[in-house]
Order: sequence, then structure tokens, then C-alpha cells
Amino acid sequence: MVDKAKRNDLIFRPHFKTHQSAQVGNWFKQAGVSKITVSSVKMAYYFASHGWDDITIAFPFNILEVNDLNNLLQHTHINILTDDILAIKFLHNNLQKSAGVFIKIDTGYNRSGIDADNFEYIAKLIREINHNSLLQFKGFLTHSGQTYKVTKNSEIHKILEDTIQKMLSLKNKFNRQGNLILSIGDTPSCSVGESFTGIDEMRPGNFVFYDIMQEQIGSCNFDQIAVALACPVVSKSIARKEIVIYGGAAHLSKESIQQTPDSIKIFGYPVKLRDNSWSEPISDSYLTRVSQEHGILKISGDEFDKIQIGDIIGILPVHSCLTANLMKEYLSLDGENISMMD
Amino acid sequence: MVDKAKRNDLIFRPHFKTHQSAQVGNWFKQAGVSKITVSSVKMAYYFASHGWDDITIAFPFNILEVNDLNNLLQHTHINILTDDILAIKFLHNNLQKSAGVFIKIDTGYNRSGIDADNFEYIAKLIREINHNSLLQFKGFLTHSGQTYKVTKNSEIHKILEDTIQKMLSLKNKFNRQGNLILSIGDTPSCSVGESFTGIDEMRPGNFVFYDIMQEQIGSCNFDQIAVALACPVVSKSIARKEIVIYGGAAHLSKESIQQTPDSIKIFGYPVKLRDNSWSEPISDSYLTRVSQEHGILKISGDEFDKIQIGDIIGILPVHSCLTANLMKEYLSLDGENISMMD
Repeated sequence: MVDKAKRNDLIFRPHFKTHQSAQVGNWFKQAGVSKITVSSVKMAYYFASHGWDDITIAFPFNILEVNDLNNLLQHTHINILTDDILAIKFLHNNLQKSAGVFIKIDTGYNRSGIDADNFEYIAKLIREINHNSLLQFKGFLTHSGQTYKVTKNSEIHKILEDTIQKMLSLKNKFNRQGNLILSIGDTPSCSVGESFTGIDEMRPGNFVFYDIMQEQIGSCNFDQIAVALACPVVSKSIARKEIVIYGGAAHLSKESIQQTPDSIKIFGYPVKLRDNSWSEPISDSYLTRVSQEHGILKISGDEFDKIQIGDIIGILPVHSCLTANLMKEYLSLDGENISMMD
Repeated sequence: MVDKAKRNDLIFRPHFKTHQSAQVGNWFKQAGVSKITVSSVKMAYYFASHGWDDITIAFPFNILEVNDLNNLLQHTHINILTDDILAIKFLHNNLQKSAGVFIKIDTGYNRSGIDADNFEYIAKLIREINHNSLLQFKGFLTHSGQTYKVTKNSEIHKILEDTIQKMLSLKNKFNRQGNLILSIGDTPSCSVGESFTGIDEMRPGNFVFYDIMQEQIGSCNFDQIAVALACPVVSKSIARKEIVIYGGAAHLSKESIQQTPDSIKIFGYPVKLRDNSWSEPISDSYLTRVSQEHGILKISGDEFDKIQIGDIIGILPVHSCLTANLMKEYLSLDGENISMMD
């Protein structure tokens, strides 16, 4: 991803919410990364305390956290995000140090942000930002999360092209404001896209580990998935060809994908753990249900007979961000404990 | 629930996985409770360190944790759970102190446990348990989680009756083994049931807070739900009548219910927070989507216009156990911080 950003002359500002780990962050540092994205003020504090000093908090600014923001700004360059003029007005009276501001643009995900063609509100918001000398208007930021609903690379390309067009129209319209940054973020577009002409910055996060949702979307292959949950086998139902593992919603979350053609709900794919690696997913096998601590694995063929209580099975998660957030620690294949934010 | 257990002459052994809090545990102690249920060895440690000395770990025993179990057994009476003869054989060589054992019975949930009519395997398992003088066979334990799939009290009653019949047939068959305990657990049966003739113990957990899933099942009313997630409003989409809150899958999990008649997916219901209480759910309003940190609220009518960024909205969770597990701390309406297990 670092190479792709370089080839396309993009600022690379990876999202650290997936791994939430200072140690994993250091791997990025070694690859020359100096700017990062986080999803909360708390996460900005954590990474600031580990030496990161150029951080975008890519979540609509929560005015109730202005004191924390002011504290952060003492030592760290922070960009905040907004789509609401009231948040900017609030900052006129409450911001104490200089901060960058991105305007959140909705390029089709319909989660948050101003519609990309709502030039009138965007112009008003920029004027409001420019009223405050402590606020530096940095540009436009979008997360085209609608790529998470597709399963063909051609569809991801189409969404990326549409996103780029919408973002460029904003740059053309508001260019007189200076050297505006256009920032995109979704991992599928950043993984599959090769040309980002006109875009200035990319903020993918999930790619650090990927997961089976990204595999289904087409962002990665199974052998690029870099986390698995190690789950002890605690029970076996011979009648149902099911294995009960110690690994449920408290570890994996309740995120699922639908597997075609039968629309089966999948909560993870099992892999065989080896000393320094793990296998491809066990064929025709999947995590079919999770409750708080239990996971129910459907295992086909001979593999079922080989598995016994006391074995440890790896589960490739549907959503690595949520799994990491629940587990709060990693064990590397070299046996190293890798800590995370509390 | 304490009263109901007394009326029915039941051992009351509430499940503490919902709240995971020593302070909340003390409220139970004040109500005369002395026996508890937990879902992991780690949770058993936590509550043992807070003075609980009669604990059932209601999860199929994970033989990889036998050292932790042996340590726990130094000072605490522990019952373990199994449905697998290999686990018992493993304990012959590895258990160092006396422990109680319940056999996990499957009364229709099909998650784990031995089918209630599989007398042959159950008899074999009891013989294996009795080979080991450190193991005390306590009885049969079931979790009829199939009650989570119904929405009528009559259906819960039917499942409860079926569960009781299945459990009684085991007692009749294996009674010569001594004073066997029949233990049931699911919150819907314990909430709705009034007669438990023949059953010896109940282990409900979720009822301590309830949630909107339990309301949908018919276990409780909205005004019995005792936790809400306090979520700052960070963005508003006037066009979509949507409110973006700081409160997503990292706080509520991805658990959802389907609302009839349109099968809309619901991730929570919004309530208005007041000084010492909260309101009924805001009518025709619901949490329609969650991503890692974002929640998207659909708000109908006048209420939408009244809500602004910086407000705090309460969200009644779909699944209070998973929400508590993610939040790791409570704030009471009196302003008291209530800590939880790490």
C-alpha cells in the first residue's frame, strides 16, 4: 500500500483503528509513514503518546470532547472532521489551539457527510471555518463505504471512479481556497484501484490484516489475511457434524457475511494452525453460529473426525477491526505478545 | 427473580456474565444470593477474588485451562460442565483438587450438550465421572436457548414444559446416582415461567438488565430495561431524517433484531435521557445501522428537529451482555462509576 501511494503521488495516511497497536504502528513507521488516521479522540491520545504527531480523527467531531481536543493540540497536529456548521460555531468559542479541519463529504455511502453536490452548504461551512483563525481548512474527506456491499472488482472500480469525479468537482469549485486536499479511505477502493488521478491522500486501514469480508468483496485473497483467532475445541456433536469452540461474539463480534448460493450466514472460516503459518480455509467448513462465548463450527469430510477437544483451531474473522478491538492483544507467529490500546 | 426462585423452592444461581461486575454482584449478595454462574475460567477468577466461593462455569470445560482450574479449586468450590468423555478422561490425569461436574444436556437448542434421550452416552459419561474420586457428579444442566427465537409467551411456556419433561426423564433414569440437580438457565423461561416442578436450580443472567431482544421475546417490558448506552450526537442528515451518534459496533456489538411487519433490522431503540431516568423509546425511531464507531439513528416526527449535535441520546441495546462486555464500565443514574472485570 505504501508503494501504491508513492506510485500515485498520494499522501499515505493509514487508518490505525484496525490494529490499535503502537507496535504495529512502528512497522508503518519503518515503512516511512508519518501521518495517520484514527477514529476517536481516545485513539488519537494513545498514538500521540507513542510519538505520532500528525493525526486525522476521521469521525465527525464530537463537541463534548473539546477539552480533550484542546489538550491533544498542545503537542500534536490534529485534523478534525465535520459536516455541521454548529460544530464549527461551537469551536469559535471553545477551541484554544490551532487545528486542521476536513469537511466530510458523502459520496454515496449515506452514513455521514454533506452530499457532494450540496455546494451551497459546503460554501457556507467553509466561510464559517475561515472565520476562525485557529481553524485551517484542509480539504474534503470521504469514505465510500458502499464498496463494502459489492463483490466484483469492476463494481469497486466504478464506485472509485464515481468518488473521484465527485471529489474533483469539489476541488474545481472551491480551488480558490488554496491547496485543498482530497482524501479517500475505503480499503476496497485502495486495494483494487490503480489510478487515483486528482486525489491527494488515501487512508485505508483494514488492509493491515484484511479479513473474510474483504476477501468476499474482492480486496484480497485468503492468503493475505493476517489475523486468525486461536480457538480451543471444547465439544463435538457427531450427529450434527459440529464442533463447539471457545470463541464467540465476545471475541469475534457478531459480524457475518452471506455465502452464495444458499445465503448461508458465515461468522468466520476455520484454518489449521501450524507452527509458523496457517492453512487455507478448511473446505466446505465455516463458523455457523456464535453466542457470547461459544462458536459452532460446521466441518465437512475427514477433517471433522481429526478434530478433538483440546485442539486449537484458527478462525479467520469476518471483520478483523472488531475482532482486534475485542481481543485487545495479539500473539505473533514468532511468539511475541503485541499490545494494543486499552 | 429471587422471590420466584424461593416460591418454587429452586436454588438460585444467577449468571454473572451479563454484568461482569463485582459491585453489581454485591446487590445479589444483599438479596441473599450465594451461588453464581459464570461463562469462563477468567470470570470465575474475577468473582472468586471478590468473595464468591460457589461458582458453576457454565461452558464446556476447556481442557487447555486445567492449570487455571486447579488453582481456582484451591480456595473455591467450582462446578464444571462437560458433554465429552475425553474431557473427563483428561481430568483423571490432570485434576488435583475436588470439583463438581454437571453434564450438559441438549434440550433442543442444538448448541452444545448431549441429546436428552441419549441415555447410553450419558450413562457412559456418568460411569467415567464416577471413576474419579475428585469429581462429584452433580446433575444435569441445560440452556434452552431456543426461547430466544420466539416472540410469544405461549411459545416460551411450551419450550419450558418440554425442557422440564426432558430433564425429568433424566432424573428418573439416573436417580440412583443420588441427589441429582436439574439446572435450567435461559432468561425467557425463567422470566415467563411460573411453575418449574421437578427442576432444582435456575441460572438466568440477562434479566439483571434485560434488553430489547428480551422485550421482543416477551421476557420483559421496555420499562424493565436497566441499561442504556449514552451516545453523543455528532452529525445530522436533514434529507434522510437521520442522526449520526458516537456509538457503533465497538460499543453495542452488531447484534440486531428484525422488526415486523417489514423485517427492518434494528440495532437499538433511542430514549431521551433525563436526570434520574430515561423515557420510553422515541416512537417510530430506531438505530438502523452501526459501523465501528458510528451509529445511524432514524428519528421520526418532531423529535428529529429537537435533536442537535452535542446532545446525548440513550440507546437501549439489542443485547445488554455484549454491550456491557464492550463498554467495561457503568455509570449509575446517581453518578456512581461501577467497575467491571477487565
